[in-house]
Amino acid sequence: MNGNICALSRGELEALKTELDQAYAAFRSRGVKLDMSRGKPSPDQLDVCNPILTEPFSFKAENGMDGRNYGGLDGLPEMKRYFGELLGIDPARIVIGGNASLTLMYDMMMRLYVFGVGGHAPWRTFDKIKFLCPSPGYDRHFAITQELGFEMIPVRMTENGPDMDEVERLVADPAVKGIWCVPLYSNPQGICCGDDTVKRLGKMKCAAPDFKIFWDNAYGVHHLYGETPLYDIFKACEEGGNPERAYYFFSTSKITFPGGGVSIFATGYGEHDEILKHLGIQTISYDKLNQLRTLKFLKDKPTTMRHMEKMAALLRPKFDTVLDTLERELAGTGLAKWTKPRGGYFVAVDVLPGCAKRVVELAAQAGVKLTAAGATWPLHRDPADSNLRLAPSYPSVGELAQAMELFCLAVKLAAVEKLLNA
Amino acid sequence: MNGNICALSRGELEALKTELDQAYAAFRSRGVKLDMSRGKPSPDQLDVCNPILTEPFSFKAENGMDGRNYGGLDGLPEMKRYFGELLGIDPARIVIGGNASLTLMYDMMMRLYVFGVGGHAPWRTFDKIKFLCPSPGYDRHFAITQELGFEMIPVRMTENGPDMDEVERLVADPAVKGIWCVPLYSNPQGICCGDDTVKRLGKMKCAAPDFKIFWDNAYGVHHLYGETPLYDIFKACEEGGNPERAYYFFSTSKITFPGGGVSIFATGYGEHDEILKHLGIQTISYDKLNQLRTLKFLKDKPTTMRHMEKMAALLRPKFDTVLDTLERELAGTGLAKWTKPRGGYFVAVDVLPGCAKRVVELAAQAGVKLTAAGATWPLHRDPADSNLRLAPSYPSVGELAQAMELFCLAVKLAAVEKLLNA
Repeated sequence: MNGNICALSRGELEALKTELDQAYAAFRSRGVKLDMSRGKPSPDQLDVCNPILTEPFSFKAENGMDGRNYGGLDGLPEMKRYFGELLGIDPARIVIGGNASLTLMYDMMMRLYVFGVGGHAPWRTFDKIKFLCPSPGYDRHFAITQELGFEMIPVRMTENGPDMDEVERLVADPAVKGIWCVPLYSNPQGICCGDDTVKRLGKMKCAAPDFKIFWDNAYGVHHLYGETPLYDIFKACEEGGNPERAYYFFSTSKITFPGGGVSIFATGYGEHDEILKHLGIQTISYDKLNQLRTLKFLKDKPTTMRHMEKMAALLRPKFDTVLDTLERELAGTGLAKWTKPRGGYFVAVDVLPGCAKRVVELAAQAGVKLTAAGATWPLHRDPADSNLRLAPSYPSVGELAQAMELFCLAVKLAAVEKLLNA
Repeated sequence: MNGNICALSRGELEALKTELDQAYAAFRSRGVKLDMSRGKPSPDQLDVCNPILTEPFSFKAENGMDGRNYGGLDGLPEMKRYFGELLGIDPARIVIGGNASLTLMYDMMMRLYVFGVGGHAPWRTFDKIKFLCPSPGYDRHFAITQELGFEMIPVRMTENGPDMDEVERLVADPAVKGIWCVPLYSNPQGICCGDDTVKRLGKMKCAAPDFKIFWDNAYGVHHLYGETPLYDIFKACEEGGNPERAYYFFSTSKITFPGGGVSIFATGYGEHDEILKHLGIQTISYDKLNQLRTLKFLKDKPTTMRHMEKMAALLRPKFDTVLDTLERELAGTGLAKWTKPRGGYFVAVDVLPGCAKRVVELAAQAGVKLTAAGATWPLHRDPADSNLRLAPSYPSVGELAQAMELFCLAVKLAAVEKLLNA
């Protein structure tokens, strides 16, 4: 059991610092070189998917379309049916995209900005557009809204998703046009939206008639310790009288190959054709061969869930290593709080305010690359300089154990430095 | 040898019409059903590429990058080197894209519209943007500039490319921000830009400092009767003192699989990083596995050119069928003019003014789908209602012979109807 470091006297802190400095120097001398900055699957996980690369598949779609040739803008019917079954979405809402759901989100935002949708004015015609950014959140989401010059409003996360009292208050401003949301195992905290959160998102009164929920269910089937249910966002929006409010995104990037998989988006029925019309100017069709190749491997929901259990078996020991080390080294010290995600790709740690950047710096100097401090906040500005994202998936368990040893050391060292300078 | 139908007397025209009506009715009764509306490779051509689907390939790039995982925004080095060699472009200019160069063009236009480039104002901030559209041209190009509300100015094609006297006159207007160009075997006429055209494009004085040439070299290695040389557009722009003027696009859509290949763009050195920065918000990386898979098959320039010779061997009899039938049925009639492309995917026919729509209608009623009349002009408005695009690649030679028989019949029938009503 650790003691509360925040309660130590100056003398005790100085003694501790000497001890930590020695341990840190010792670690540095080991010449470790590790990267736990991004949520990348490990080579082990990718190897499980290698049959996709070599297994023969038919290039004929079930409707007779030749997957090798032009055509099929909205994707192959069997692929829409597959994702519909996997995610509980009516296939008629679904459009199959290319290798990146991030691109689908970017392009969707661009269409709203340049053309508008549903007869509403293009967002470029407004002096000010604001976007709700539950924080900590996903840096690449925030980068899209930053790129378009939107004012990003951080919203606090609760254990059931974004703070809905705050969200409901904010959407009374007509300049607030939308919200980013990772509903299951949020990046980085691993928080899941409760039924009540989803229902409130669907029915809340928004001053902007074209308010949009960017529902990035990136980890929708990425359970580590059994399934977490998620209320149907389309149902919530329809029940709330806002059937066009949600844009749903998903991909196989962390099911098969990141950057080599298949992405989708799904929308309300009312905007589907309008969006497809714009899409039909941007492309003739996405890669149908990769649709067929991927579907051959993932086949159906049961097959996919069995495959995801293999992925989970590879990921669980890594999450356990992270959480066990945090518990052993930092529980009771008063220096850090963290979440225990039941799925997804990340663990978030809140260190003492003003210490996050220093932790990243100390880790880097000892050979461990962490996600940059602040990255989980809009404009990379964490007001408390406190939140850190750990990405356990890529390193091996052995590497991770070393990296976590250093991480905890850096958290303590940064805290002691801070406390001594206070 | 055909006689000049335009010179016939009314009585002769009426007799001819009776004859043509009978022939047309006879054709209709055959119940033919053919589509020569789009430039799609035939299944025969695609079969030649099937090894791509099954041949094993290494997922490791030469720089050690795992093609299955995230990373490599601008594409794999070996892929850039390959396209650089194939097209005579410095690989440092090249960014490898996804499955569609059309998307790269759309996205590039969107960036100019939303963000601007090189410190110049975004195009959305101008009251009026005009774009030069050499016509007849490619409908999907024009659809992009139409989607953004640009005024499209048709420019006449000469046998050496766009009418450069006209282009040079038009670019003195600062609202004119760019030009579409298919420099080799233009769609639909198969016209190739001469050295002088390329040099003048590079050095002409444009009032808009951010004037852009969208250089879609879609048929850059798609020779049918030997290679046609093309002057280096980047060299032309640099010699002209306008190193950032050209955006170069290319893809393997008609080398391997349409919609399942690899696309590229290339730019001036000065804008390269700025464009990549925007691209890095839109995606993490394109599909590197498809880069590796495609490169395994196409290998290098000599291998690719041998492969294209196989493609040409399949396409040549089709182009010959089209051109021979036109010559046999329409030469000397005064009813049509056409081009004899030495590569690419299309043959363009100019029928009597006011007759193109009627020809398409007559063909459709007899079971042959042609590209819509007007499709080759901005807003689908051919001022003369005269230009028609024939796409010989997809049907078999036998089917094509039938389709061309009908086409020539329809051209004659529409002309005789027109002449009788004059």
